[in-house]
Amino acid sequence: MKRLLMMLAMGFGTCIIANGQNNKLSQRPNIILFLVDDMGWMDTSQPFGDSAMELNRKYHTPNMERMAKDGLLFKQAYVNSVCTPTRTTLISGMSSVRTHITNWTSITPNQATDYKDDELSAPAWNISGLSTGNDLNTYHCEKPLPQLLKDAGYFTIHVGKAHWGSLGTKGSDPMNLGFVVNIAGSSLGHPQSYYGQQNFGNMPGKATFNAVPDLQAFYGKDTFLTEALTQKAISAIDFPIKEKKPFFLYLGHYAVHVPLQPDKRYVSKYVAAGLDSTEAAYASLLEGMDKSLGDIMDYLKKKEIEKNTIIIFMSDNGGLSNTGRGGIRNTHNLPLRAGKGSPYEGGVRIPMLVKWPSVIKPGSKTNSYVSAEDFFPTVLKMAGIKFTGTVDGKSYLPVLKNPSIVKNDRPLLFHYPNRWTTKEDEGYAWSSGMRFGKWKLIYLMKQKNLNCTILIMI
Amino acid sequence: MKRLLMMLAMGFGTCIIANGQNNKLSQRPNIILFLVDDMGWMDTSQPFGDSAMELNRKYHTPNMERMAKDGLLFKQAYVNSVCTPTRTTLISGMSSVRTHITNWTSITPNQATDYKDDELSAPAWNISGLSTGNDLNTYHCEKPLPQLLKDAGYFTIHVGKAHWGSLGTKGSDPMNLGFVVNIAGSSLGHPQSYYGQQNFGNMPGKATFNAVPDLQAFYGKDTFLTEALTQKAISAIDFPIKEKKPFFLYLGHYAVHVPLQPDKRYVSKYVAAGLDSTEAAYASLLEGMDKSLGDIMDYLKKKEIEKNTIIIFMSDNGGLSNTGRGGIRNTHNLPLRAGKGSPYEGGVRIPMLVKWPSVIKPGSKTNSYVSAEDFFPTVLKMAGIKFTGTVDGKSYLPVLKNPSIVKNDRPLLFHYPNRWTTKEDEGYAWSSGMRFGKWKLIYLMKQKNLNCTILIMI
Repeated sequence: MKRLLMMLAMGFGTCIIANGQNNKLSQRPNIILFLVDDMGWMDTSQPFGDSAMELNRKYHTPNMERMAKDGLLFKQAYVNSVCTPTRTTLISGMSSVRTHITNWTSITPNQATDYKDDELSAPAWNISGLSTGNDLNTYHCEKPLPQLLKDAGYFTIHVGKAHWGSLGTKGSDPMNLGFVVNIAGSSLGHPQSYYGQQNFGNMPGKATFNAVPDLQAFYGKDTFLTEALTQKAISAIDFPIKEKKPFFLYLGHYAVHVPLQPDKRYVSKYVAAGLDSTEAAYASLLEGMDKSLGDIMDYLKKKEIEKNTIIIFMSDNGGLSNTGRGGIRNTHNLPLRAGKGSPYEGGVRIPMLVKWPSVIKPGSKTNSYVSAEDFFPTVLKMAGIKFTGTVDGKSYLPVLKNPSIVKNDRPLLFHYPNRWTTKEDEGYAWSSGMRFGKWKLIYLMKQKNLNCTILIMI
Repeated sequence: MKRLLMMLAMGFGTCIIANGQNNKLSQRPNIILFLVDDMGWMDTSQPFGDSAMELNRKYHTPNMERMAKDGLLFKQAYVNSVCTPTRTTLISGMSSVRTHITNWTSITPNQATDYKDDELSAPAWNISGLSTGNDLNTYHCEKPLPQLLKDAGYFTIHVGKAHWGSLGTKGSDPMNLGFVVNIAGSSLGHPQSYYGQQNFGNMPGKATFNAVPDLQAFYGKDTFLTEALTQKAISAIDFPIKEKKPFFLYLGHYAVHVPLQPDKRYVSKYVAAGLDSTEAAYASLLEGMDKSLGDIMDYLKKKEIEKNTIIIFMSDNGGLSNTGRGGIRNTHNLPLRAGKGSPYEGGVRIPMLVKWPSVIKPGSKTNSYVSAEDFFPTVLKMAGIKFTGTVDGKSYLPVLKNPSIVKNDRPLLFHYPNRWTTKEDEGYAWSSGMRFGKWKLIYLMKQKNLNCTILIMI
């Protein structure tokens, strides 16, 4: 079995060399990655399918609708099914199959996060994440994307959730990955608390490693974490704007990851609409995130830099649905199947929007599929940076310029030889997936599934 | 009594308007404030008196000796007798008499730190520190020094101890005071732990508000806090160096404040020399700090920017001597009297060095006296920034150019209408002091001292 997993890993890891070219822009664009945590493809009032469906009516995300009107909507954007593999792929350009960071990383270094299993154990993976150092059990990445951007003169800012490596590794500190400024980013994958009144977890004697750093000015205040991060992000981009330096802002919201704590600015209307308390909290986390997006867009407009500022809106995996949500399991991403942790569409397909007024035709949509690996080469092209290292993705800059280009003729991989939680149905453990054109192949590794291989038409 | 204190306060708060002028330097210098915590005038092998004395032989600070050889030594540099008043003065240019930040600020907002006293209570002071916002019980400073420098195009970096305001206030976050980058600065006045192995205090369930933020890459490592901050500072100045932008680095070491934890790189030789464990730890904290100074100087040289980089070495108050040290109380700053918290020389006179190869004659010394208030107008002059607000200090740029200038003809104030600890002798509580020329006036406020006024010749 282990041999089979290894073969699969090797087969997936084909090497693609991407050579960036200088773009022709006289002024390099600012680039914002607006990354939401655990947000599903249906977690928005902006439909990503052909038409609005039931779940689209559950949520209110007016600023995503506004962004879709102004930019390009990707109907088929993919990432990994859990967070760290997507996040390390975004800044390395390499598939988790190559980096061997296949599961989420623990805050504690050298500690695998795989749930105990009687039958299978995970093949060796880099359980401490990605690092620019030589830390044990990490994938060494000499020049992550922020470093390349910084080297090219970009002012690089990290705000929010990092989760690239375990504590004690170089990768745990965004400043070691090329960020000039880091606010609130560390090894933690979710916040201890979303509430300023609880100091985001920083309570003497009660703080865990999940207490969010760097937000002391909001301690004791009625400020929700999403709002605090937004204010810090806006404040941080002021310097490069004033200095007329291009900037890269990586705004990684902790929302909408558990703990599903209600954002009281928005929760009442969802309760009034009949949602249970968990789902109302979830919806309020989404709307708080959406308000952040609106604030960022407004600020760019106010500063008169919106035309040459690119915003890329993404999530890091599909919506949570196997545990911890209200209502019935595996319904939270419908019509997509399953959710976070699964290679089925609910686990890997994400809402994605790109806004770039000087390049993208407003209100465009595309069926071109893209993956987490594509972010790295695309951003390098946007910034006009040449790069000759290994890249597993492909720039989607041509799609931004012409959304009718649809060349879905390469394999997209979802390799998860790991186990996440108690529940194992729907591919939530020991699975791999590959999308190719209209087809998707799912491989379930457990013997009881008889090495089950399922072919699905998308 | 209270009326008397108020009159004293008003009298001290005379308004001096300083108008900066653009300096003639074609290239603006980089400016580094190397600020040590609680370091006394005698805590170094570099004599600041006329000759080496007993305590100078106790410590090893070769890099301070090296800096003195390369720069200018101030024999009579003064600050406040406790930390926050000095620190808020440094970045506001105003006396603590004016800002009414007369004592150290608690991490908890709106909580006075005065030790309980049966006879006196402190006049109203800004117990939550300095802020750019309108936080309760803070002194509002619209444009602190880092903000003025940033506005003028300086890349402003804060590393280490901040301690300008209590948690929940704007002033608790150095980024709100004009720093583009903040590493490890918050409301805390001393670290929970100096040890990387103890995550600088960030241990789940054990962390207090004194756990040092932002150093996650060193967690679990054998890295002393002073070393971690130095590495972060060096890494942070790389960006402005590469971008050829002038920078302001405020490196506020937590050393040599309590807890007096031994720095194991240096402690053995002090134990071997017969120092008790507390004093050996203290000496090792000093030498670790000195190593940091050497590393910074080496790095400037390596990057070929030392000529146009100014380093200002200071401490924030006199050396601790009334409690918590080994040996006999009130001997740790001899021949200076008393220590931290007292208006006597041991509490307010600090070791100060300035290095600026393109301006200062190597190996100079001056008897010109300077105060914490002078830092602000001096740095503005160095950076060529005009400023028309209120400043209580005076630029010592002329002294840097000509150290033989000695015009000690203005009053220097040490106003501490507060109580610090159990011990009240030697001016450790309820005192004011004024130096003027050769004379120093000490006023002890307690009735049992019969409103004692003491005049001393320096």
